[in-house]
Amino acid sequence: MSGDANALLDEIAHIGVDRQRGGYTRLVFSPPELELREWFARRAGERGLRAETDGNGILWAWWDIVGAERRDVVVTGSHLDSVPGGGNFDGPLGVASALAAVDLLRDRGVRPVRPLAVAVFPEEEGSRFGVACLGTRLLAGLVDPERVRELRDESGRSFAEVATDAGIDPALIGPDPARLQSIAAFVELHVEQGRGLIDLGQPVAVAGAIIAHGRWHVRIDGRGDHAGATRMVDRQDPVVVAAETIRALRAHALVVDEARGTVGRIKVTPGGTNVIAASVDLWLDVRHRDETAVRRIVSEVVAATERSADAEGCTVAVTEQSFSPTVAFDAALRERMREVLPAAPVLDTGAGHDAGVLAAAIPTGMLFVRNPTGASHTPAEVAAPEDVAAGAIALADVLESLITR
Amino acid sequence: MSGDANALLDEIAHIGVDRQRGGYTRLVFSPPELELREWFARRAGERGLRAETDGNGILWAWWDIVGAERRDVVVTGSHLDSVPGGGNFDGPLGVASALAAVDLLRDRGVRPVRPLAVAVFPEEEGSRFGVACLGTRLLAGLVDPERVRELRDESGRSFAEVATDAGIDPALIGPDPARLQSIAAFVELHVEQGRGLIDLGQPVAVAGAIIAHGRWHVRIDGRGDHAGATRMVDRQDPVVVAAETIRALRAHALVVDEARGTVGRIKVTPGGTNVIAASVDLWLDVRHRDETAVRRIVSEVVAATERSADAEGCTVAVTEQSFSPTVAFDAALRERMREVLPAAPVLDTGAGHDAGVLAAAIPTGMLFVRNPTGASHTPAEVAAPEDVAAGAIALADVLESLITR
Repeated sequence: MSGDANALLDEIAHIGVDRQRGGYTRLVFSPPELELREWFARRAGERGLRAETDGNGILWAWWDIVGAERRDVVVTGSHLDSVPGGGNFDGPLGVASALAAVDLLRDRGVRPVRPLAVAVFPEEEGSRFGVACLGTRLLAGLVDPERVRELRDESGRSFAEVATDAGIDPALIGPDPARLQSIAAFVELHVEQGRGLIDLGQPVAVAGAIIAHGRWHVRIDGRGDHAGATRMVDRQDPVVVAAETIRALRAHALVVDEARGTVGRIKVTPGGTNVIAASVDLWLDVRHRDETAVRRIVSEVVAATERSADAEGCTVAVTEQSFSPTVAFDAALRERMREVLPAAPVLDTGAGHDAGVLAAAIPTGMLFVRNPTGASHTPAEVAAPEDVAAGAIALADVLESLITR
Repeated sequence: MSGDANALLDEIAHIGVDRQRGGYTRLVFSPPELELREWFARRAGERGLRAETDGNGILWAWWDIVGAERRDVVVTGSHLDSVPGGGNFDGPLGVASALAAVDLLRDRGVRPVRPLAVAVFPEEEGSRFGVACLGTRLLAGLVDPERVRELRDESGRSFAEVATDAGIDPALIGPDPARLQSIAAFVELHVEQGRGLIDLGQPVAVAGAIIAHGRWHVRIDGRGDHAGATRMVDRQDPVVVAAETIRALRAHALVVDEARGTVGRIKVTPGGTNVIAASVDLWLDVRHRDETAVRRIVSEVVAATERSADAEGCTVAVTEQSFSPTVAFDAALRERMREVLPAAPVLDTGAGHDAGVLAAAIPTGMLFVRNPTGASHTPAEVAAPEDVAAGAIALADVLESLITR
């Protein structure tokens, strides 16, 4: 059915189902994500949108103006990759709503005066290579392509190897200022990842800001040994240090109003029940509207980890994997969106987005669709069909305003 | 070369190398372990030892007495499976030394008056299905075959499925009292997993006792959620509870003299950096010469975990996966071994072994070979070639004494 984002989401509801974790695991360039990219290209093609893949693996599907150049372009879209065991809305909702909005604009007989593109960005979650919004960071020149080529996934494969297998030449990744300069506005629609719209009783919101967000990789090295034969006082056990890292992050994040601090990923090596670990890798995710608060929390957690490591005879190495300052979206674009959607409230968000990365380079805005559980990055994330439909209409309304004047 | 345990170990040094963790990963019935089992059957066959696989997947290679029944049998052997990222000695040293000892006995022209068998026991480490010494526990009727068939590995495959693929009929697993009754003595040679022989300046020891050892699976359920959008006070984060479990185990094991308490395996689900976990699985390994001390430590750790879970809005389920009481090896057999090896000291060990399981059913003893790092369950585990050779000779000496009178 034309203009039906719910039907589009239903089409992909079988792809990347994770029977162990529940929900979906659609890591970038893995078979499920590649299947989703093919699905997108096919559905775009059926709508007469010319799909192309750029040097960074970003998909673009073009509604061109006959005889006109691709300048002052309006872009919408989102991502198709997921966290491990995520929902079917975080990312795909923005892609499906973009295609549905194109249908709605055509049903309305809208005649664009500037091109519209629907984009799909790879590795928004950073779940495979550890850097969130990797596609848009490459596009905007915010990450070193050489470093990206060497990023490795959990199985030890490099980004360069994995991208090559997905048909993307890793030699071509990197900043694309000409493409950015051709874009007049980017609007990303996304399922809300908190409870703001539930409390306000509204299906759709306009984004105010994204709070600052960083990720740090903490590596703790100890000495692997036998769990039965090694006396407690002879141990250099990195798991004991990791427990202190977790405790310290919780404690320091709790005392700073509206801060967020999470350890959600831990890797113990070698990982046997009867083996004192040789090393632990864990990751800190820390966020606050005030960037200095983020940095202060992390430095306190690192200090606590180092104290514990000293006592345990372990060593610690901390690497900043990404840091996104607070992003205030484009004020003029936000005002335009509020004119078009007068009932929509303005909401800040603690979640990072490709829109947050692109906001530094081009006028950018976001729409959020109500999530009745308030939960995200879990199979419990959901959006009601009527809210999905309302979101696609709201996006079409905003895009109509942007491409017709 | 005949009688050369070092050469036999060299033959398998390429099998199951783990490039990610270092060392070896040879999980039971995985391709590397199956390759090792085939290697053993081939090497046994070349020595005229008739190899068979019993209903529990235990390999037996027979040096029979022509015309005599298999009764009053002397058994030696060990295991070929490893922990993830273990060494090449824990298990294979006992198997290679057994084959080498057979060669030495033949070189000496020893004429046995009773049969000798070399055994290879599956899943000694419990690294795949969570129950250590699974093969000997089945043989001795210490674990319910129905429960074993339903044990699952990390990928969710059942023991029954995995065994079937390895050519073992899971319907046939279970106690085999007739086989146990036919065994007069079992002697297992093993690399030492501590520093006892280093301090004593001896290459080989006779085992005194194995200290009590249990494993518990702790499952903590919370609520998966978004790491950016969820306020700290709204969280039910099982990782925070797991950190308290780790802290409590270290604290309680430290204050009990000669206790051991380890968390070496942690699984966070779903396991994304930007995802508050929905659940954590972790495993406790606790040991002490006094069984009641083990149980007291575990109950204190469980209580601390439950208090933390209550505060966090999480739930906890604790399952005992195995419990092995303190094992004192057969006194008469130990005295016989000390007569044959007068220079060998008697050492207790904190590590569990198939010999510890079989000791409850048949006269059982162990020999330990010096490990110059004192480390085990890590690639740093090692034995000097001259000590490996001395171990095979010591085993041959003990076996000669047992099979000739």
